Amino acid sequence: MRRLLLGVDLGGTNTRAAVVDAATGEVVAAHKVAHAERTPLAVVRTVAEAVRAAAGAAGVSPGSIGTAGVGVAGQVLGATGTVLNAPNLGWREVPFGDLLAAELGVRVRVVNDLSAAAWGERSFGAARGVDDALLFFVGSGVGLGLILGGRLHEGAGGVAAEVGHIKVTPRGVVPRKCGCGEWGCLEAYAGGMNLAARVRDDVAEGKATAVLAAAGDASRIGAAAVEQAYQAGDPYARELWAEVGELLGTTMANLVTLLNPARLVLGGGVLLGCPNLERISRAHLGDRASRSARKALAVVHAGLTDDGGVVGAALLGGGASAPALTVN
Amino acid sequence: MRRLLLGVDLGGTNTRAAVVDAATGEVVAAHKVAHAERTPLAVVRTVAEAVRAAAGAAGVSPGSIGTAGVGVAGQVLGATGTVLNAPNLGWREVPFGDLLAAELGVRVRVVNDLSAAAWGERSFGAARGVDDALLFFVGSGVGLGLILGGRLHEGAGGVAAEVGHIKVTPRGVVPRKCGCGEWGCLEAYAGGMNLAARVRDDVAEGKATAVLAAAGDASRIGAAAVEQAYQAGDPYARELWAEVGELLGTTMANLVTLLNPARLVLGGGVLLGCPNLERISRAHLGDRASRSARKALAVVHAGLTDDGGVVGAALLGGGASAPALTVN
Repeated sequence: MRRLLLGVDLGGTNTRAAVVDAATGEVVAAHKVAHAERTPLAVVRTVAEAVRAAAGAAGVSPGSIGTAGVGVAGQVLGATGTVLNAPNLGWREVPFGDLLAAELGVRVRVVNDLSAAAWGERSFGAARGVDDALLFFVGSGVGLGLILGGRLHEGAGGVAAEVGHIKVTPRGVVPRKCGCGEWGCLEAYAGGMNLAARVRDDVAEGKATAVLAAAGDASRIGAAAVEQAYQAGDPYARELWAEVGELLGTTMANLVTLLNPARLVLGGGVLLGCPNLERISRAHLGDRASRSARKALAVVHAGLTDDGGVVGAALLGGGASAPALTVN
Repeated sequence: MRRLLLGVDLGGTNTRAAVVDAATGEVVAAHKVAHAERTPLAVVRTVAEAVRAAAGAAGVSPGSIGTAGVGVAGQVLGATGTVLNAPNLGWREVPFGDLLAAELGVRVRVVNDLSAAAWGERSFGAARGVDDALLFFVGSGVGLGLILGGRLHEGAGGVAAEVGHIKVTPRGVVPRKCGCGEWGCLEAYAGGMNLAARVRDDVAEGKATAVLAAAGDASRIGAAAVEQAYQAGDPYARELWAEVGELLGTTMANLVTLLNPARLVLGGGVLLGCPNLERISRAHLGDRASRSARKALAVVHAGLTDDGGVVGAALLGGGASAPALTVN
């Protein structure tokens, strides 16, 4: 009989719950629910509803599985299940793991969404069986999942891998404030949401660029429109991608030099949806990572694009891989 | 009966071998020999001589101990014992572990010197019992030892932690070439050897500074003279420490944000010998590391200054801590 696990991807807008086959990573059933409200108790009920629906579709009950793993876009205080900070949900210090465990009557593990996705890739995706692998993600934010020595690295306080908030000081660039309230974070320059805001500001200030035309109207400005304008030869877009690609590529290079992974898994809509930005970033990675660390490295795309998060969360929640639960 | 181990610190000028008590980290006996030549075979003989002398002084033989650990300033190819690159010795791809094992008739493990020192600090020094600890070292070079999840992190190719070769692009600063042949490495700005060369160049070009007077003559220019001039209010020294301190502090901050250690252990003559540089660096660390990662963090000085390397090498060589040998 196959062993089933429960995984949840808790986003700012929707929750997706899935029943996952522990041996194959297959998503047996899934259910998605939009959040009506974002208060912790409302979200607990929404998540529980999604979990029960997914379990029902797979012909099981949450109680018969006994565990659930939840990936959340935010900082999670390691083993406690407390969400320290989840900007998309407007949460600070919410004991989400305890609340959901009480509601569902199962053991719950809460992890950062990119840690979950990295563990999914390591288990059944583009980093399968690789002991030292990094998942580098550029979407609305910039994030990282760290698999080191075959284990998920969450750090002493459970908040490691916050690559979006490393400080970068690009030459010639105006310091930009990040959503976290600090100045000079990588995400302030390279995250999709901040990128879009910056281009909209530049367009509003009358800078000459084809990005607005590519987007259609200002509200649709984003990385995809910059990529389109770049492709058409727009000098503004070329300058922006040169800057952002240098920041992303240098960051990837420094991660490789520091951690010497065998696999660097790229993910996220901005990085994978903008081939020119990806090309520029990878060129800087190739130029700037230490030669000896590059020897062990393969750079690949995420393999479980939509499912990595729920699969990884399910495995981590179920303790399907024992070492992952013994970190710290 | 106590268990004794053999540890070696293989430097560019000297080799120091020690017999170490596995249970306490005590250096029972030690012997230091200067290298007459730096060819691999000559160094193997010198190291073997130092090891035999240290063992003799402790009343044991290398064979009765059965293992030795060697820390070397350079890149080591993980479990193979091959030294990929040791600039101080002028070596490239030297199978040092095999050569020394054949000479001594014992099992040999070769590791990077800062990995050895970090493991020593984790075992008996300033990071004793801490599962996530970083040793950040600024001496003639800039280096790092990574203890993650209770294990030494060496990476997929055994060359992780090369923090001296992450790429930094400080605003307003002329790009500088590193000893590794690349441009813009942290060590090119902040390593003691490169710092000294830069100040000597500036003095030779006639820049106004009190560093030369503090040093006595140009050949003695180094971090200590800059610190002395800083203390006396020299504007050149103040500007230099502001720049180097920002680079070092930002690097430490980014390491803390990425890896969320409980302990950051500072070491090396430049960092510990220059209190003003240390103060400036720590101020940037405090400003720039992510708030949540700072919560778990204590910043301390290395506790085993001279002995950390031989103690850690001995323990790693002897497999005194089993997990350290199972990395990757």
